[in-house]
Amino acid sequence: MKTIILDAMGSDSRPNSEILGALSALKEIKDITILLVGNEKKIRSKLEGFPFDRKRLQIIHAEQDVQMSESPVKALKEKKESSMAVGLTLLKSGKGDAFISAGNTGAVMAHSLMLIGRIPGIQRPTIATTIPTLYGETLLVDSGANADCKAAQLAQFAVMGDIYAKLVLDRKTPKIGLLSNGEEPEKGNELTKKAHTLIKKASFLNFVGNVEGRDILTGEVDIVVCDGFTGNIVLKTVESLFKFLYRVFKQEISRSLLAKIGILFLIPTLKKLMKKMDYAEYGTAPLLGIRKPIMVCHGSSNQKAIKNAITFTHKYLQKDFNKALSREIDKLKEV
Amino acid sequence: MKTIILDAMGSDSRPNSEILGALSALKEIKDITILLVGNEKKIRSKLEGFPFDRKRLQIIHAEQDVQMSESPVKALKEKKESSMAVGLTLLKSGKGDAFISAGNTGAVMAHSLMLIGRIPGIQRPTIATTIPTLYGETLLVDSGANADCKAAQLAQFAVMGDIYAKLVLDRKTPKIGLLSNGEEPEKGNELTKKAHTLIKKASFLNFVGNVEGRDILTGEVDIVVCDGFTGNIVLKTVESLFKFLYRVFKQEISRSLLAKIGILFLIPTLKKLMKKMDYAEYGTAPLLGIRKPIMVCHGSSNQKAIKNAITFTHKYLQKDFNKALSREIDKLKEV
Repeated sequence: MKTIILDAMGSDSRPNSEILGALSALKEIKDITILLVGNEKKIRSKLEGFPFDRKRLQIIHAEQDVQMSESPVKALKEKKESSMAVGLTLLKSGKGDAFISAGNTGAVMAHSLMLIGRIPGIQRPTIATTIPTLYGETLLVDSGANADCKAAQLAQFAVMGDIYAKLVLDRKTPKIGLLSNGEEPEKGNELTKKAHTLIKKASFLNFVGNVEGRDILTGEVDIVVCDGFTGNIVLKTVESLFKFLYRVFKQEISRSLLAKIGILFLIPTLKKLMKKMDYAEYGTAPLLGIRKPIMVCHGSSNQKAIKNAITFTHKYLQKDFNKALSREIDKLKEV
Repeated sequence: MKTIILDAMGSDSRPNSEILGALSALKEIKDITILLVGNEKKIRSKLEGFPFDRKRLQIIHAEQDVQMSESPVKALKEKKESSMAVGLTLLKSGKGDAFISAGNTGAVMAHSLMLIGRIPGIQRPTIATTIPTLYGETLLVDSGANADCKAAQLAQFAVMGDIYAKLVLDRKTPKIGLLSNGEEPEKGNELTKKAHTLIKKASFLNFVGNVEGRDILTGEVDIVVCDGFTGNIVLKTVESLFKFLYRVFKQEISRSLLAKIGILFLIPTLKKLMKKMDYAEYGTAPLLGIRKPIMVCHGSSNQKAIKNAITFTHKYLQKDFNKALSREIDKLKEV
């Protein structure tokens, strides 16, 4: 039996998505308990009418919420009773096995660093997000945790990504690419040029060199390494593209009767495609390099995204990334 | 009558795309002359059988080519007789009004800086690329000229983008966004945080603050400002997405008879969409901040892309960006 601590006050539609997502997950996964952390009154009022097992879904009151636009450092200092702080303190004290939040990512990162701490040897924790590609999924690391990075940190992201891809994504010898503005090793900015040299030194990695923006979605590599500023922009651009195409498609179709007829035939195919691209299917990402398992979700997470995040966390806990990382921590010295 | 100097040895399929593109353009635009610069023997052999006006299409021999993977600085030093060097020397001496190349962008930039030079007051030239959005086009500046930038350079890109969008894209008061990893002014990396403050100071600009990856394709703003490393990655990611979707769509369709029938009805709509997204329609971008008009194209440019580049350059010359920039050069002091 695993216990998952869920920040109930993270998402844009808090605590609704979190409560409904937790209820769905409990139905599907029998060997978990969920601790819902947040405003007890709001949570109880929303839960009214839903039958649930009080042993498996427990409410932990937290007086405050961290807002999306709030400064992480300010929240850390001034909101000691936030759902994030309360939840992570529970995790620290061993009252749960993992923490999930759809709240302010910067704040989750700051609270995790302060309350739980880094794994020794890790310079910066990183967020590893899987994105859909032509041939499956690619891991984008760092996808938003660190806006400014040093080359050695990028090299550590490559090592953590490698362990993660092997363990969680079942890749045997994951191909690693460094995101740059050209394929040639001498192309790049100051940061990637240095990082290229460092990652190349680590002979235990299957480093294929620089990759470009166009290589991300074709799935040329299993892991794309970049700083968190670039990663965040790439991730959001890719997500928006599917929405963009959907809207352009709709516009065009509204202009043509033939197209309307065509679409009727295509509905099953389009549904499959939408599912493939749906962020809610890829709605969570681990914060790698922290001493305990912590997962971040989209602020716009809906019930399905939260349910999927819990399902994923359940699977992730069985793999024990941190144990694998500790076993291979000496590899970090090689980069 | 305008004279356009075309590097015939730039594209991946050189000199074929360049020659065929030039021939198409000459048919369509009556008041231009094209100087094709490159290996005369290869050009003449390709031109055999095509009727053309020898007054309007002239061949200027250049002994060497700059390769795509070649170091720009090395090419500049060692290939004094490259088509790029010969073409830009012609531009410098007033033998033509604009120079177009689909070759190594870094090399075009290095040659332009050395042979033609910056407009006084401009720290770094920039490439401004228009990308298709839901409501028209957005200008991405810098889209690849400068991998490492300073905040003051980003502010100058904003000013040049503003003048360009008014003059060439016919926007009255272009909305300018700074690409970052969050909307709030305090979000960003060290570079964008400083740039945000600088751009905000320039009260003559319609600066709406930070925009995110998701705002690029929705067309929230007319101009997206970023460093050239990020711009290159965004541009290539966006371009690849259309190819990606086309392939995924094809895969799905091959599996379903219903979908195949649906597609038959949709062909006109899909063609319109593909045209909207086709890079060949957006196949050229000006190098802003250099003393003479210089246009860069994709390495993968085909005949149509080169023809469109020439058409665009013809239009661009009528607007005289450099004159407008010189008139407003004092604005640069405000950022």
